[in-house]
Amino acid sequence: MKGRWVLGVDIGGTNLVVAAVPATGGRPSSIRSEPTRAERGPEDALERIGAMANAVIEETLALEVGQAADFAGVGIGCPGPLDLEEGVIVTTPNLGWDGFPIRNRIADALQLPASLDNDANCATFGEWWQGAGQGVASLVGVTLGTGIGGGYIERGRLMRGASGSALEIGHMTINFAGRSCGCGNRGCLEAYTSGPSIAARAREGLAAGRSSLLPDLVDGEVSRITAETVYDALIQGDDFSADLIRETADLLGIGLANVVNLFNPQVIVLVGGVARAGEHLFAPLRDSVERRAFPSAARACRIVPGALPDTAGVIGAAGVFVIDRVA
Amino acid sequence: MKGRWVLGVDIGGTNLVVAAVPATGGRPSSIRSEPTRAERGPEDALERIGAMANAVIEETLALEVGQAADFAGVGIGCPGPLDLEEGVIVTTPNLGWDGFPIRNRIADALQLPASLDNDANCATFGEWWQGAGQGVASLVGVTLGTGIGGGYIERGRLMRGASGSALEIGHMTINFAGRSCGCGNRGCLEAYTSGPSIAARAREGLAAGRSSLLPDLVDGEVSRITAETVYDALIQGDDFSADLIRETADLLGIGLANVVNLFNPQVIVLVGGVARAGEHLFAPLRDSVERRAFPSAARACRIVPGALPDTAGVIGAAGVFVIDRVA
Repeated sequence: MKGRWVLGVDIGGTNLVVAAVPATGGRPSSIRSEPTRAERGPEDALERIGAMANAVIEETLALEVGQAADFAGVGIGCPGPLDLEEGVIVTTPNLGWDGFPIRNRIADALQLPASLDNDANCATFGEWWQGAGQGVASLVGVTLGTGIGGGYIERGRLMRGASGSALEIGHMTINFAGRSCGCGNRGCLEAYTSGPSIAARAREGLAAGRSSLLPDLVDGEVSRITAETVYDALIQGDDFSADLIRETADLLGIGLANVVNLFNPQVIVLVGGVARAGEHLFAPLRDSVERRAFPSAARACRIVPGALPDTAGVIGAAGVFVIDRVA
Repeated sequence: MKGRWVLGVDIGGTNLVVAAVPATGGRPSSIRSEPTRAERGPEDALERIGAMANAVIEETLALEVGQAADFAGVGIGCPGPLDLEEGVIVTTPNLGWDGFPIRNRIADALQLPASLDNDANCATFGEWWQGAGQGVASLVGVTLGTGIGGGYIERGRLMRGASGSALEIGHMTINFAGRSCGCGNRGCLEAYTSGPSIAARAREGLAAGRSSLLPDLVDGEVSRITAETVYDALIQGDDFSADLIRETADLLGIGLANVVNLFNPQVIVLVGGVARAGEHLFAPLRDSVERRAFPSAARACRIVPGALPDTAGVIGAAGVFVIDRVA
């Protein structure tokens, strides 16, 4: 592959992030981020991505006085499902840009070759390439946020599956008689441990009469409670929120024990907001996995928070471009 | 690899099977099988495996008048967990030969290089190499019997995991508040759909007053009901047994939908006794997976019975020897 730099473009439901990443790995030389404003449509976002990319390229080249432009291409990460072959967004509940040929449009706009992969694969790759699981033989990444996604890397290769939807961890059934999920099934992991599900369980507890600091933190408007509010309350010593996080860890541990029994990975990295709960979450989570997974497989697996909380996606998007060229 | 033939040795809880398999694939030239009689211990079994292997080698060489002995090695399949690196049985509830260095002992006895892998990996490899999933890019094998195991093959390579226990499908939690499992957890797939679990659910239904042909088929001794008895009753028109198999298909479909969402494979092959229920099982099973898995992933995946009901394990054991030498 020719070119010392690769652009990463991370298209999230909340933010657009663009960065220049060394093709051989390392810290971005320049990074830009702004709100996605998905409701304005993909053309508007495309224009802003182009402007951010130009600013990032300019800043990177300014660091290297006297060197010619040296960008090999652009790696794009985007919520799915995606048609990886055609480079098209199939459906995106979080963006609403169904059918948009995102890969070729960005390639045309930037006049660079482009790759596309889903956001969870990119974040997983970022953590394997530059983050918490650097260079391990096998790694599962789990993205915890509005939804729950995942990726699996073995010997440096992402598992994509027959139709590009491997590692859809969020819709693993952990209780077929359990909570209703947005997907129409019951008892998906996501119905218990996504950000919105944690908030919903908090509201249910309050409605059932649990006393808590939570209502005070949202001026009594319990509809405004988010997973972040629960962590804030936990830090402030709220017992109910501590119970909720312990329960979340236990439920997430059921899902991760399944992952451990199926993939037997060396490392599971948790990426995203929920990971910020730190040992309040990770200690009971590891206990839960240990209680349930095959002993040898549980012993072989480290469960760790991501090391790149804000940049795993954009760094990984650039990294996926690199490995796809090399492969 | 030198040698036109490979010996396969399939050590099961019920039977020992030894066969001579062409190193390039194809039907065994000779095959021997006898009851395992695990309670006599591994030394006794080793002696009988040696005798069977010699008979199989002799018969194979007799087919090729004038050619020298031409066996490259022996591939062994065995219930686990195993220590693949050392070639040792760690624990085997079905055999009781804990700590036995099975690989080197068979290699010494036969004076041939040997490989070892677990029975589910071998059966999966057999179906990919010579059976129902020949040459597909990605395949999950599920062994349904006393326990439930599995294997995953991508681009001709078995996924073994960090400690040799990938694809432990049987202990995937599908209902964390559900039936107790022998492993100490609740709601494992195996607690619903293994052979003994199907029989247990049959007995529970009878105890709850369901009328059925089942008691007649076991002369009133309901403790003798097995999964096979349930299929027999189903074939004879027993409504309760039909309900049980439909329910089994639905529950197994929950587990396989998880597998589809995680691995997104081209093919899932069901190996072993339960697969013999045919379309009575497969039709509602495919429905269950379709209702629950990601639509694109469900569409991309064929769910089929194994094509080598009695020989997938022994053929696959030989095949694993071949790929391990070539890799």
